[in-house]
Amino acid sequence: MPAYRAPVQDTLFLINDVLGIERHANLPGFANATPDMVEAVLTEAGKFCEEVLFPINQSGDLEGCTRHDDGSVTTPKGFKEAYKAYCDAGWGLLTAPEEFGGQGLPHVIGFPVEEYRNAANQAFAMYPGLSQGATAAILVKGSEEQKATYVPKMVSGEWTGTMNLTEPHCGTDLGLIRTRAVPNGDGSYAVTGTKIFISSGEHDLADNIIHLVLAKTPDAPDSVKGISLFIVPKFLVNEDGSLGERNTLSCGSIEHKMGIHANSTCVMNYDGAKGWMVGEENKGLAAMFIMMNAARLGVGIQGLGQADVALQNAVHYAQDRRQGRALTGPQDPEEKADPLFVHPDVRRMLMDGKATVEGLRALCLWGALQVDLSHVAASEEERQQADDLVSLLTPVIKGYGTDKGYEVATNAQQVFGGHGYIEEQGMSQYVRDARITMIYEGANGVQAMDLVGRKLAQNGGREIQDFFAIVDGECAAAKDKPAFADLAVRLEKANGELKAATMWFMQNGMANPNNVGAGAHHYMHILGIVALGSMWLMMAEAAQKALDEGRGNKPFLEAKLVTARYFGERFLPDAGSLRRKIEAGSEAMMALTPDQFLAA
Amino acid sequence: MPAYRAPVQDTLFLINDVLGIERHANLPGFANATPDMVEAVLTEAGKFCEEVLFPINQSGDLEGCTRHDDGSVTTPKGFKEAYKAYCDAGWGLLTAPEEFGGQGLPHVIGFPVEEYRNAANQAFAMYPGLSQGATAAILVKGSEEQKATYVPKMVSGEWTGTMNLTEPHCGTDLGLIRTRAVPNGDGSYAVTGTKIFISSGEHDLADNIIHLVLAKTPDAPDSVKGISLFIVPKFLVNEDGSLGERNTLSCGSIEHKMGIHANSTCVMNYDGAKGWMVGEENKGLAAMFIMMNAARLGVGIQGLGQADVALQNAVHYAQDRRQGRALTGPQDPEEKADPLFVHPDVRRMLMDGKATVEGLRALCLWGALQVDLSHVAASEEERQQADDLVSLLTPVIKGYGTDKGYEVATNAQQVFGGHGYIEEQGMSQYVRDARITMIYEGANGVQAMDLVGRKLAQNGGREIQDFFAIVDGECAAAKDKPAFADLAVRLEKANGELKAATMWFMQNGMANPNNVGAGAHHYMHILGIVALGSMWLMMAEAAQKALDEGRGNKPFLEAKLVTARYFGERFLPDAGSLRRKIEAGSEAMMALTPDQFLAA
Repeated sequence: MPAYRAPVQDTLFLINDVLGIERHANLPGFANATPDMVEAVLTEAGKFCEEVLFPINQSGDLEGCTRHDDGSVTTPKGFKEAYKAYCDAGWGLLTAPEEFGGQGLPHVIGFPVEEYRNAANQAFAMYPGLSQGATAAILVKGSEEQKATYVPKMVSGEWTGTMNLTEPHCGTDLGLIRTRAVPNGDGSYAVTGTKIFISSGEHDLADNIIHLVLAKTPDAPDSVKGISLFIVPKFLVNEDGSLGERNTLSCGSIEHKMGIHANSTCVMNYDGAKGWMVGEENKGLAAMFIMMNAARLGVGIQGLGQADVALQNAVHYAQDRRQGRALTGPQDPEEKADPLFVHPDVRRMLMDGKATVEGLRALCLWGALQVDLSHVAASEEERQQADDLVSLLTPVIKGYGTDKGYEVATNAQQVFGGHGYIEEQGMSQYVRDARITMIYEGANGVQAMDLVGRKLAQNGGREIQDFFAIVDGECAAAKDKPAFADLAVRLEKANGELKAATMWFMQNGMANPNNVGAGAHHYMHILGIVALGSMWLMMAEAAQKALDEGRGNKPFLEAKLVTARYFGERFLPDAGSLRRKIEAGSEAMMALTPDQFLAA
Repeated sequence: MPAYRAPVQDTLFLINDVLGIERHANLPGFANATPDMVEAVLTEAGKFCEEVLFPINQSGDLEGCTRHDDGSVTTPKGFKEAYKAYCDAGWGLLTAPEEFGGQGLPHVIGFPVEEYRNAANQAFAMYPGLSQGATAAILVKGSEEQKATYVPKMVSGEWTGTMNLTEPHCGTDLGLIRTRAVPNGDGSYAVTGTKIFISSGEHDLADNIIHLVLAKTPDAPDSVKGISLFIVPKFLVNEDGSLGERNTLSCGSIEHKMGIHANSTCVMNYDGAKGWMVGEENKGLAAMFIMMNAARLGVGIQGLGQADVALQNAVHYAQDRRQGRALTGPQDPEEKADPLFVHPDVRRMLMDGKATVEGLRALCLWGALQVDLSHVAASEEERQQADDLVSLLTPVIKGYGTDKGYEVATNAQQVFGGHGYIEEQGMSQYVRDARITMIYEGANGVQAMDLVGRKLAQNGGREIQDFFAIVDGECAAAKDKPAFADLAVRLEKANGELKAATMWFMQNGMANPNNVGAGAHHYMHILGIVALGSMWLMMAEAAQKALDEGRGNKPFLEAKLVTARYFGERFLPDAGSLRRKIEAGSEAMMALTPDQFLAA
């Protein structure tokens, strides 16, 4: 039977020992986040995810969603009850603003809850997850009236939200959007068009669904500069807040997908549906990016979540399943075979997983703290630096994080041998669910281009220079301490490869931008490796400090030191070969014609 | 709509220009394989796979197999007809011995047909594929009577075969087998036990199914030294060759799997079923390894096949789908967007795929030629060297080949963006089907241990030393030619990393065998990279020669030169970082207790 245990111990170590959020107790939101309160929230959240969401994960995958002839969609057995329990417990309120009924806690507390939710049941987590993104866009760009009308009920979970970007002929390239929004003359618009791949587009969990839809007004420029954002509710909302007439939009079909079966992925048809513009005309892309940036971090967390639940099950299996003998001689001579756990190649997959999962968790929480600081840090300079860092690392958390999450899930499945391929065991679902994280909210190649094409170049490279300096500073400080010197030296070297790759782009990108594009994916991975190396150095130092002070769980802390060393030995060397690949440039990559690709 | 085109042009280039099999025309089997004959066979085989097998690939995945209450299994719509067409056309006869009705062609001709079959429909290909393995074991270890009774009908396809190894509690560790075979006193045995994961274990394609079953006789040692192999037919065979009574064996259930849905993966229950021993008592493992080695090469070919069909579809999609603009400026200004093909990161995935697929195809065919030469080469020395090389590279073709095959299929799916995640598009199936190739016939970790634990050490390291010398010889010869010098230098360097890793194992494996186990998977990948590099050097030289002589398809040959360069630039650098990981040894990898793995 698949199992899941929320990693509360690790989260608390990160929040308290590594990130030391108590230092920020003076800032808005953080004041409420006392250590006791944080521990209580995470423990309860973990319990909810383990006991309510995880038990319906596999059955939800098996059953999937059902669309009925009237266009309504039923979620799998137990989802409705679980969603009600989720709302009743107020899990949607954690990080929402207090003025709209939320608890106003920092994101660094909200992210772990999102991780647990996604690890326990990614398809379920997407229902409230998309609401969060939609709510964020309304909060930042909506009018006061829109905020008052929609946000409180979206925060409480009474209503959910969606993001409607993709159309059959356009995904990444939103300039091609054909959905039209024509003014009705009363301040509303008539929205007409077809959107596809709309996650949580129609379901039976909530009373209303607030669709955020990208569309073009009649005279809009025929490019991304002509896109506006609209609120298009499933049911119109009366002035008193009660539900009014059914809007003219419907779910035309749901997709048969590789995974996340329990989330309804809808084709949404808008047939002159009534909508209201959010923010300024033709500035929809900017509003959309508020949703997207939050969503991209959220997808990174999904990759982490699937990796963790898959890894946990692989660890259990490796202990329980006996097969063969240790290379060093029988470990359990009284048994007919030793557990899989004794085999180095099994251990390689588990250690790769552990180094990745805990490294990504640290990076996600560190990113969440930057999100918080970018809003509430005391000085403009601190806010700017935090914003710079999260902006630089969002594509890495999404792109590198989900590439690695899928890899960890695949390796965890591999530990099970043939049993991993049987759906009953649950491992296949983690791989199939993790697979989407590399694709949606901007495929990972798009993340890589966002990183090298936009983030590296903006502000004269300030963001990446900041990052270099932070890592160099960490390494310089750690190199004097024998316990971390090896990792620090290796990290400094990897940071050097990253600098060299950056320099190579600067020197070769002007002459031919394809030289940058050809190395984008590798660059995203070097940056991911260095970022995780930096997290492991921070974790190792925090673990050593706790050990020195006689605090905490000794085996847990010692495992951090071992895994940090492992990361240095087994992950950081890749930075060098990735840099060499980047330096090969784009010539051979771009030389062939389409016909030459097919050797048939 | 998914598409598949058999890569006949590439196969012919390999057979004629790269491997030059005409040189072997003096050897048994090769005499019949004239260039015209080979082209005709491959062209027809390709057509059959494109027109008969591929059209039922996706529908077979969707429908899957059905087990009925009486234990019978129905294959998906169209499979029975396709299998009949397969037999009628004589596709099972190609490489079978002439004395049993086969055509006696070399494996280097049979392997490409196996590739096409697996690319077009892996689940289908497994039915005849397992028959081939079972037939090979009977041919080598069976009595004359057993050969006469079973082989002709298994070769013709009237009957199919299976391999019964795994039991619920034992997969890799066959010493744990519990299935018993008790002598009936008439030369037959009563076989009792449960076998799981039996591919093609029960179906409606053939009149009889010849199960090859590993079991223990009553006094057998309780280890792998106590395993015997038995023929256990579904229907007993009368002396005149007609079918007699139904044997007491049955399919208890079929598995619900991640992929290969159209192949029935059965739990087989043997209830005192009548069986006959193949070869000597307690020597079943050796007989089984005849099946396994053939099967492992076959699985490598499956990985190649899934990679190729996935890549072909990604290439088409990248040409058809328009999204965004080239970084160097609009390529098709009259259109609203350029094809995906212009984007370097899309091209990276396609080029990685091309370099892998064509490199693996070369390695598989080169391996097939070694199989042939190991049997029929003129001198004992040549036969021995060919046998050495195929023995060394079988785990690489299986393990590295399927790791990379899955990666190529995943990347091809990625090219489709969100559409790749929708089952309708077909890309998900290639990934799901490819996934099993990393697991069955010895999970890839087992392949890696076979390589470093057995193949490297046997005969004083003669096999790997031969391999080093071959690659060094190639590099030395090529370094003088400007067109290949860069690739040759890079390959020589990668070969140097391989030598260094080998040396490190020798120096550190004695003290702690876990040091070898900890690097096994990485070593398998370095060897795979060097082997593919060597293939690309051979292909580049053959392509250049043909171009110089004004022969062949110029764009095809020029693409070989470009892709060879790409492989050198983008694949060979990994050898260095993999070596560094190996040299990290096993200390950190093996340090943690099971409890330390879970950070919850």
